[in-house]
Amino acid sequence: MSFCETQRTRLAPLWDRMLSHPFLLQTRDGTIPHETFASWMRQDYLFVEAAIPFLAALIPKGPASHWEPMTQAIGALIRELRLFEERADAVGVEIRGTQPSFTTHAYIQFLLATAQNASYEEAYTVLYAAERAYHDSWRMVRDGLERSSPWWPFVENWAGPEFAAYVAYLEVELDKLAAEAGPDRLHRMVEAFETTVRYEIAFWEMAMTGEGWPGIPSTNQALT
Amino acid sequence: MSFCETQRTRLAPLWDRMLSHPFLLQTRDGTIPHETFASWMRQDYLFVEAAIPFLAALIPKGPASHWEPMTQAIGALIRELRLFEERADAVGVEIRGTQPSFTTHAYIQFLLATAQNASYEEAYTVLYAAERAYHDSWRMVRDGLERSSPWWPFVENWAGPEFAAYVAYLEVELDKLAAEAGPDRLHRMVEAFETTVRYEIAFWEMAMTGEGWPGIPSTNQALT
Amino acid sequence: MSFCETQRTRLAPLWDRMLSHPFLLQTRDGTIPHETFASWMRQDYLFVEAAIPFLAALIPKGPASHWEPMTQAIGALIRELRLFEERADAVGVEIRGTQPSFTTHAYIQFLLATAQNASYEEAYTVLYAAERAYHDSWRMVRDGLERSSPWWPFVENWAGPEFAAYVAYLEVELDKLAAEAGPDRLHRMVEAFETTVRYEIAFWEMAMTGEGWPGIPSTNQALT
Amino acid sequence: MSFCETQRTRLAPLWDRMLSHPFLLQTRDGTIPHETFASWMRQDYLFVEAAIPFLAALIPKGPASHWEPMTQAIGALIRELRLFEERADAVGVEIRGTQPSFTTHAYIQFLLATAQNASYEEAYTVLYAAERAYHDSWRMVRDGLERSSPWWPFVENWAGPEFAAYVAYLEVELDKLAAEAGPDRLHRMVEAFETTVRYEIAFWEMAMTGEGWPGIPSTNQALT
Repeated sequence: MSFCETQRTRLAPLWDRMLSHPFLLQTRDGTIPHETFASWMRQDYLFVEAAIPFLAALIPKGPASHWEPMTQAIGALIRELRLFEERADAVGVEIRGTQPSFTTHAYIQFLLATAQNASYEEAYTVLYAAERAYHDSWRMVRDGLERSSPWWPFVENWAGPEFAAYVAYLEVELDKLAAEAGPDRLHRMVEAFETTVRYEIAFWEMAMTGEGWPGIPSTNQALT
Repeated sequence: MSFCETQRTRLAPLWDRMLSHPFLLQTRDGTIPHETFASWMRQDYLFVEAAIPFLAALIPKGPASHWEPMTQAIGALIRELRLFEERADAVGVEIRGTQPSFTTHAYIQFLLATAQNASYEEAYTVLYAAERAYHDSWRMVRDGLERSSPWWPFVENWAGPEFAAYVAYLEVELDKLAAEAGPDRLHRMVEAFETTVRYEIAFWEMAMTGEGWPGIPSTNQALT
Repeated sequence: MSFCETQRTRLAPLWDRMLSHPFLLQTRDGTIPHETFASWMRQDYLFVEAAIPFLAALIPKGPASHWEPMTQAIGALIRELRLFEERADAVGVEIRGTQPSFTTHAYIQFLLATAQNASYEEAYTVLYAAERAYHDSWRMVRDGLERSSPWWPFVENWAGPEFAAYVAYLEVELDKLAAEAGPDRLHRMVEAFETTVRYEIAFWEMAMTGEGWPGIPSTNQALT
Repeated sequence: MSFCETQRTRLAPLWDRMLSHPFLLQTRDGTIPHETFASWMRQDYLFVEAAIPFLAALIPKGPASHWEPMTQAIGALIRELRLFEERADAVGVEIRGTQPSFTTHAYIQFLLATAQNASYEEAYTVLYAAERAYHDSWRMVRDGLERSSPWWPFVENWAGPEFAAYVAYLEVELDKLAAEAGPDRLHRMVEAFETTVRYEIAFWEMAMTGEGWPGIPSTNQALT
């Protein structure tokens, strides 16, 4: 069994918890409150923005054969930001200028720290796990969401064939990297996979609960 | 008013909240449950360990005049790890092999990402704010803790004259860096200061509540 | 006078020396020996390849408004590699698998070290100076080279309108960065500009003389 | 045969060329012109200074067991700078404010780029090869130099028992890293070893010949 299959099997309880998160179920069923979805959009916009330096920082560490696909993936992220802006406009949400929530801030730091400090194989694991998580999550949403929903373009973006091909490519490459990794490196790839899934769950949880910074009353939540 | 004074004044409500956190008050009063303190020791041991690569990564970005003090500060962190190990031994706590909690993981990623991606001035702000927070926190604890307490050596370490001199040195240098920074850079230093205080509060909160990863039931908390 | 103009004026003697280098004059006049040009192609192919991680490493350090143009510039470098491969094929030169000469190795290390350790402003200065040097150098070659020359496509690439627009964009942005830089940072930008011009001259010199590693006889030149 | 032994055997012709470089022979025999030695001191002072951020940048990439020895090695480099300053004072040489020669600049860029972009194993190879080269070079000098020579303290520093123990420690650790490295990584370690020896030879050559930047007449050599 390949590295990616092995991890998805091992982490099935967490993966299923992610895919059955109330945020996704309510989005699929069209019952998600508008402000809850808007809040997720604002936070995910920050996350997608941070994914650009994450991918860019991987290029110098990776094999030359990965440079062109990684550059194209950065291009796709730039288009994804446009999609957020366009959707926010369409439904009257102000998407710019939001402060990151605790979980968004933490997940972004994890991306950036991993890109700089971890091995390429470990950082590539985080990239795959996060992209695969979004692909699976929005395929789940697709199974129920009305095409007339203002959120349908997100389904088209992450559950569509282009993104599917990208995730499949990442899986092939990650399996190759894992096949060549020594035991220490492989162990850290396994940990990075799980940590990413944990952050994905935390992200949906944050979007649903409107969580603040721990130990700080809501009146002091906004960074000044 | 200097940069550091300005920020401590501006952030007084958060700083006071930090200094009056139940974890610190109970530690001062000798009423903190043993397992709660042990849990903090395990998490802070991970944090101090991560502070070593954080400081090391700052050296190549900083002026040559900072290299020797920063190298000495790394030496102090190595001795701090020994202190944790010695205290853990003394009270029969197994300190090694713990998994980071969500907040510890996030705060460590913040350190590492900042060291690599932020300007030197911004990263130096995080260093000062975190060290100053510990100095003030343990001076508060000193005001009540019995000298016979097994936790007294932590007071000696962070509230003592050597650490005081180190924090005073950091403040002088940070004020100099701030005086030379342009408005954009200064704005990011201000944000970095506040974010660090928020993480400090979150850290005491985590130590007190034994928080897990958001959205994951306690049976799945341990990373495998 | 803008930063870029000031530097080009200040460095005019070096810039003129670069533009009147025998390699460029002989290329313009069609008198360059085939093997000399082939040797340059092999070394510059290595350099262009290394420019990809250089640009990618700049993205996390730069403002978000630079991310899309920088990503497009990486795309242009990938197409530039194809141009080298296509030209090498056309004239029967084996372009892959060459070892870097001393100067190529050094210039590549300078790019990579600058991207990681220097400020964004300094690294952007290196990018501009190197791209502008190529634009001016190949415009000089264009003034004499026959359109039927196998090297004409290099003229089209670097002296053409698309590259001209790219260099003009870099100049506008670099002048903005310089206008906001404090005196220390500006001083380092000035140094980085000059160092880049020195490396450009060294590169033509290496291509012309077939230089080896200093102090090592030619029989030991090849890295094993 | 261990990795280090294998490489020293494989590279024996280059290693011998390094050890029999005229600069070292003349230093050993006390016939080196004062200005030639002073010129080396100025350039090597720049190199030792750059080795501090090189070592610091390795700490975040290496195993925790390497942090304390690496921190001590930085301390040793700081003392080495003091030695240069003290010797320069003693013989009336102005050691500060020198511009790096082409080879010094290139070698420093190689150190910094390797620390940031290469694997830890590769960077550790460069560290070992450079330190071992100095240890062997100055042991060679020790065999002839008078103890009354003003350069004797350099012999004591690099050929002495403390430095010998440090180099022996690095060799044990590097052999362990090599034993665990996969074939690709090992191949790059082999290349890094050879490149370092080449730079060491180039450095003595530069010190002996007073080389300038290629293609630039001596009147323009100084960076402004």
